[in-house]
Amino acid sequence: MQLTEAEQAAMHRALALGETARGRTSPNPPVGAVVLDEDGTLAGEGVTAPAGGPHAEVVALAAAGAAARGGTAVVTLEPCAHTGRTGPCTEALIAAGIAKVIYAVDDPNPLAAGGSDALREAGVTVVAGVNAIEAASGALRAWLHAVSSARPFVTWKYAATLDGRVAAVDLTARWISSAVSRADAHALRAVVDAIVVGSGTVLADDPQLTVRDGDDKPVEHQPLRVVLDRRHRVPQSAQVFDNAAETLVLDTAVPRFALKALFDRGVRHLLLEGGPTLAGAFIEARCVDEVIAYLAPTLLGDGPSALGHAGVGSLDEAVTLDVDSVSRLGEDIKVVARPVWAEQTAGER
Amino acid sequence: MQLTEAEQAAMHRALALGETARGRTSPNPPVGAVVLDEDGTLAGEGVTAPAGGPHAEVVALAAAGAAARGGTAVVTLEPCAHTGRTGPCTEALIAAGIAKVIYAVDDPNPLAAGGSDALREAGVTVVAGVNAIEAASGALRAWLHAVSSARPFVTWKYAATLDGRVAAVDLTARWISSAVSRADAHALRAVVDAIVVGSGTVLADDPQLTVRDGDDKPVEHQPLRVVLDRRHRVPQSAQVFDNAAETLVLDTAVPRFALKALFDRGVRHLLLEGGPTLAGAFIEARCVDEVIAYLAPTLLGDGPSALGHAGVGSLDEAVTLDVDSVSRLGEDIKVVARPVWAEQTAGER
Repeated sequence: MQLTEAEQAAMHRALALGETARGRTSPNPPVGAVVLDEDGTLAGEGVTAPAGGPHAEVVALAAAGAAARGGTAVVTLEPCAHTGRTGPCTEALIAAGIAKVIYAVDDPNPLAAGGSDALREAGVTVVAGVNAIEAASGALRAWLHAVSSARPFVTWKYAATLDGRVAAVDLTARWISSAVSRADAHALRAVVDAIVVGSGTVLADDPQLTVRDGDDKPVEHQPLRVVLDRRHRVPQSAQVFDNAAETLVLDTAVPRFALKALFDRGVRHLLLEGGPTLAGAFIEARCVDEVIAYLAPTLLGDGPSALGHAGVGSLDEAVTLDVDSVSRLGEDIKVVARPVWAEQTAGER
Repeated sequence: MQLTEAEQAAMHRALALGETARGRTSPNPPVGAVVLDEDGTLAGEGVTAPAGGPHAEVVALAAAGAAARGGTAVVTLEPCAHTGRTGPCTEALIAAGIAKVIYAVDDPNPLAAGGSDALREAGVTVVAGVNAIEAASGALRAWLHAVSSARPFVTWKYAATLDGRVAAVDLTARWISSAVSRADAHALRAVVDAIVVGSGTVLADDPQLTVRDGDDKPVEHQPLRVVLDRRHRVPQSAQVFDNAAETLVLDTAVPRFALKALFDRGVRHLLLEGGPTLAGAFIEARCVDEVIAYLAPTLLGDGPSALGHAGVGSLDEAVTLDVDSVSRLGEDIKVVARPVWAEQTAGER
């Protein structure tokens, strides 16, 4: 079905709105919604509120008020037909008199799915799959992956020298990357649900693990700080236990156990910022979905490498990455890539 | 002085010609020359012949013949006023009746300099410095650096994983980089005078160190193969001693000693392809002028890193690089950078 110009513009706006909700909605997905009135004029818009609050469609409907009657709702994700902490969005859309629903991505969550069927049964015109690839690779990517794999989406981030070192031989590590890379890394923290480190990183660097603004002040919304500390080595005086954000200590260093606990707690997108040992454990367990490397144009020649033992014994067992982007960030090189976990064939590269 | 369109075109042609001579002229520089007749029509062109053969200007004059009289010579480097294995180019230009000489870069070689003065004294119009930056950063770069520092220009090339490993823990290393990167590395070998490795690399990988074409056959012109083998560990059965190219064994692993010996032998541009230990020694001695890294989109987590001990004890002693380019080469990332050897200030990055 051909969309009108107003409907296309509404979908682009909904996608942009969804981006603004990243890191604030889990376990709900960061969704954007726009309501057009009967004439195709923008009547209301919304994003998913933090967990327990209304979904994007309900926010947009509330903003539109009576103008929603006979109008069109444009949403990045299929409206849910499920009563969780809030009522089903399908019912809200039908009750508001919406005549047409346009959405991008089907809801893979078996509990919430069936929204489009419920809408059609109520006589609402439904157009599915509009800008689906864009939506699924954007704000919804981590959530979709997490829901289908029943564990959080894991982004492993590290800053290293061109020769792969994350610290000098005397373990000085601040600052390997440039100020612009560090700012980029803070922006990354702002869109995840949790930041995970091992006890070794806390003991070595005593990081605060908060999202800070340009003046190095913590911002209001902070991701959960998680320390994997099997042997209870981290003292309560560590900065990670200050009151700038919530902190969770897990007494396991087994990636799948930690991920299960965090998923059950509602974490859908997790940023792994640990050292080489923890990164190696996550890679070995095939629990890394995205790699973001900041490579500084420097050489050290000694000191720990970014990735420790990951169970790779030979070159043909190397973990292969699909590179999404390579860019310059100030003086640094930023690489974004995805591990390819399928069985690899020796000598294929 | 404003150049005519024909003169500008001739300089671009001369620069392109100079590129084709890279790796074949040392100890002479890879120069390109074009002769225009009195009317500005192309009359002849030439590149520096291998050592002992004529310089570019003389080749171009010979091609132009009588058409050179009253014409213009366009050259990438100041014509020499020096009798080496061949007579001075200035005399050849004057004898041919050239009325004007346009060149890019002044000759820094005190033995050969003075060419422009000699030409002017003979009544020849001289225009210096045309496209000088382009010429000095192109084909002439290594030679200019070598002549001014009295040691070969050193390009350190390595192929590593994204986490900086040059081999797996079992020392399997073929092929870390992709076919397109390996072809690029062969093109690099073709434009240098010598390829240097340590005995460790020969013993571990038994490389042939030749320039091979698309069918993996050695090409006709081969750079000198150099093995630094202080303890005479490399057996005569090593592939590096086959008859595909000349091979020199130096019984030192001290970079400056090796570079002195190679400079005296006429080497002006050298490609360092050794392992982490040798690379570390060259970096520590500040004897690397260019770094070319091929980073494969793979992770190993174990195995030797690209750069071994380089005398860097702390982060503020890290070697800083100026990045010239970052590009994708097939699946790989190619980084070209130059070490900044000036005194570094702690915490500046």
